[in-house]
Amino acid sequence: MTSEDKVLIFDTTLRDGEQSPGVALNVEEKLEIARALERMRVDFIEAGFPASSPGDLESVTQIAKQVRGSAIAGLARAVQADVDACWEAVQHAEHPRIHVFLSSSDIHIMHQLERDKERVLEMARTMVAFSPMDATRSELEYVYRMLTECIDAGATTVNIPDTVGYAIPEEFGDFIRKIQENVSNIHKASISVHCHNDLGLAVANSLTAVTAGARQIETCMNGIGERAGNASLEEVVMAIKTRPDYFHLSTSIDSTQIHRTSRLVSQLTGMSVQPNKAIVGVNAFRHQSGIHQHGITKMRQTYEIIDPAEIGLPHGTTLVLNKNSGRHGLKSRLDDLGYEITTAELDRVFVAFKELADKKGEIDDRDLDALVSGERRTVEEVYKLDLLQVSCGNQAIPTATVRIIGPDGRPSESTSTGTGPVDAAYRAINGLIGVPNQLLEYTVNSVTEGIDAQGEVTVRVEAHDRTFVGRSADTDIVVASAKALMNALNRAIAQAPREPQEAWSNP
Amino acid sequence: MTSEDKVLIFDTTLRDGEQSPGVALNVEEKLEIARALERMRVDFIEAGFPASSPGDLESVTQIAKQVRGSAIAGLARAVQADVDACWEAVQHAEHPRIHVFLSSSDIHIMHQLERDKERVLEMARTMVAFSPMDATRSELEYVYRMLTECIDAGATTVNIPDTVGYAIPEEFGDFIRKIQENVSNIHKASISVHCHNDLGLAVANSLTAVTAGARQIETCMNGIGERAGNASLEEVVMAIKTRPDYFHLSTSIDSTQIHRTSRLVSQLTGMSVQPNKAIVGVNAFRHQSGIHQHGITKMRQTYEIIDPAEIGLPHGTTLVLNKNSGRHGLKSRLDDLGYEITTAELDRVFVAFKELADKKGEIDDRDLDALVSGERRTVEEVYKLDLLQVSCGNQAIPTATVRIIGPDGRPSESTSTGTGPVDAAYRAINGLIGVPNQLLEYTVNSVTEGIDAQGEVTVRVEAHDRTFVGRSADTDIVVASAKALMNALNRAIAQAPREPQEAWSNP
Repeated sequence: MTSEDKVLIFDTTLRDGEQSPGVALNVEEKLEIARALERMRVDFIEAGFPASSPGDLESVTQIAKQVRGSAIAGLARAVQADVDACWEAVQHAEHPRIHVFLSSSDIHIMHQLERDKERVLEMARTMVAFSPMDATRSELEYVYRMLTECIDAGATTVNIPDTVGYAIPEEFGDFIRKIQENVSNIHKASISVHCHNDLGLAVANSLTAVTAGARQIETCMNGIGERAGNASLEEVVMAIKTRPDYFHLSTSIDSTQIHRTSRLVSQLTGMSVQPNKAIVGVNAFRHQSGIHQHGITKMRQTYEIIDPAEIGLPHGTTLVLNKNSGRHGLKSRLDDLGYEITTAELDRVFVAFKELADKKGEIDDRDLDALVSGERRTVEEVYKLDLLQVSCGNQAIPTATVRIIGPDGRPSESTSTGTGPVDAAYRAINGLIGVPNQLLEYTVNSVTEGIDAQGEVTVRVEAHDRTFVGRSADTDIVVASAKALMNALNRAIAQAPREPQEAWSNP
Repeated sequence: MTSEDKVLIFDTTLRDGEQSPGVALNVEEKLEIARALERMRVDFIEAGFPASSPGDLESVTQIAKQVRGSAIAGLARAVQADVDACWEAVQHAEHPRIHVFLSSSDIHIMHQLERDKERVLEMARTMVAFSPMDATRSELEYVYRMLTECIDAGATTVNIPDTVGYAIPEEFGDFIRKIQENVSNIHKASISVHCHNDLGLAVANSLTAVTAGARQIETCMNGIGERAGNASLEEVVMAIKTRPDYFHLSTSIDSTQIHRTSRLVSQLTGMSVQPNKAIVGVNAFRHQSGIHQHGITKMRQTYEIIDPAEIGLPHGTTLVLNKNSGRHGLKSRLDDLGYEITTAELDRVFVAFKELADKKGEIDDRDLDALVSGERRTVEEVYKLDLLQVSCGNQAIPTATVRIIGPDGRPSESTSTGTGPVDAAYRAINGLIGVPNQLLEYTVNSVTEGIDAQGEVTVRVEAHDRTFVGRSADTDIVVASAKALMNALNRAIAQAPREPQEAWSNP
């Protein structure tokens, strides 16, 4: 199926990435990321781990039903119930895939699957993953045997994970070479790799594996994932693209979608991207100011190995709209940005757009992203913030008054003091909404430059033993903070507590 | 001097790191980072580029005078004036070092230095850097010749930069090997590497170079630096430390200083560290919540290749002080944290500590870091914020009143409305302080968990064609925002506009 010089991208932002501590996406958000991944033309979208929770089952099912273009994969332990749940979800996809993972103790299960070979084949390509990185000579033999058996059982891709991010590139490349030398039926399968970044080497390990013969890389957008994350999609893809002289390989990724997809994932997961992040950090294509324009121009040619346009970074100013812009102008710009927006959504976004344009005049693409995010992705607002009124200062006792409309449509009010305006507002809100919670993280970033910029607030709260992310943007950061907390609490109310997960290990 | 299995760490956080877009450290801040690097036992601290500005000359001089233990290096182009300025600054160091860099067109200058050989020798070890990465066969020959001549001229270390972050690990390793095969006098010098991270490969390239025979790595804390930054100190060091079975090498770094140094650099530069950053990201040792405690315990053993204590990450809760804690308790905790604090500083920190403890009760190490940062590192307050009073809300026009004490000791007041409380406060402040400026970036992070946490505000403003960072922490984020802007503007006032820099290129 794949030509010799094609590297497939198996993106697991929605599975391993979603396992990042504190990340919690709902079905709508997962769908939106899946659509962005599809636009970027990833070969496989690992949409979740259907057996892990009803929420995951539901979101994998929805993605399988609604996303075309990319193949849709689900993760499953090598137990019948997991494989069944996974198939239930991914069967709706144009190209379904089940990604089975085994620890070494699970090998008898694979025999069981083998007995049911027809069923396995019906489920199309099965992938196998295991964790052999502390491999001594004898363990290597075991790994070869497992791979041989899995391929005999019908696996067309075998995935080699560096689960703990322990491998060094040269060593990992050698391992991939040895697998090709020692697994007799390896020509019937393609080798995939799944590298973790605990030592900062996930991308290098993935690339070395590819030069050693692997033809699929498991990635996450922005390199998110458990602990220090996974190989970053954008780095792997752009390294292969920037150095064709070295790799003689290509991917099918539309790299111009990288910038926006990175922003989307960062926004929805609440996982920030540091300024010096390769490819997608804000500094990646920005040179120190204070050097003459001549120098910058000269440096751009001398020092930039990637044209910013290749990742879809807009050149120059992105200013497009102002308060005189009409509904049509807004719609047309949102179309350009790739938003598939319903008429009802457009109505809400347009109202918010007019309000914002009244306040700050010039509205650029980043403002629009924040607006759409705010008006579109809110969960059902069981509780609505009707009024917020705050006073504070360095010689004042911060005081907040809030009025909230409850599920019964009735307003109720509360006033509270606090250590600051956000604390006061949160105490007042918590006094009205009976969801015990603890604030774990609170961040504000300005959406654009300038003192009149919108502040984008992300909060992470723990409630019902789970983490919920709340987001909101407003030119008033105290208002945005209150709305972000309301957003998180409405999410907590919307989702029934997930059943406790077993302690399981995966790639 | 160096044993065969020792890799030297040449840290350039204060030179290449400080060239990160938007970073601007003053002398005090550079000294504080230099002291932290010394505590971490880096072999070389590249303290700046003395010829680039009087500020850099001054800070390299101060670091050379005050920091012992690590050797102190300065960067210089291969021109007499640069080398002289560099020597003027580093001569005060216990172990001075001049880091000369050449582009290929500069080779005649090296001849000039060679003629003045005694002077070069007096300046001790000279380092040479150049940019040969697009190397074709003929360019390689040229590189070999340059290296040979530089070593003949007295260089005891030659530094091979991948200036544009274009190299792939295996390729870069081969290049280091070829240098050893083709430069006849290479045995008289040690090979250093300086890798940039544009493709996410700086750490892997550095490590591959070391396995190929290099014995020095140029690093930045948190991997900061121009564009996507440099090889990250913590990743390079912990890879070598975690995999002695593979590298058979060591560094002299005290890894338990990594966590605090990372925080310090992030705080002072305003360069955030993403949660999934290897080694120092907040998630690096954090597992997804929602998995049973049993699972976490099991996973910690199974999945963590580094004990968090190895990087100095405190185990368990870091809560230590409350409002009943006395001056002595505070001093003792600050000592434990490694702060060398004067009595006058302690006085100010103690007052701020009491105020904060009154507001939020429990004060942990992160709060103390923020307090010390606020009370200690402020520049001279030409303008002081005396009073701030703000009202805002979702149905209000945000309004701020400020009273500022000017350089003449007289108070003046101003009131402004704005699109939010921060905008209103900033307009009022700008109305009183006549420094035209533009806000480039605005971020708030909570220092600790909980709704009563301090918000740490970082702003970046452009004034006099330069960037200034302002920081402040307070439980009231509007107050912290106002103080952060005042901090940035006082910096702008304190520092005379730096003379425009030429467009120069460096490693």
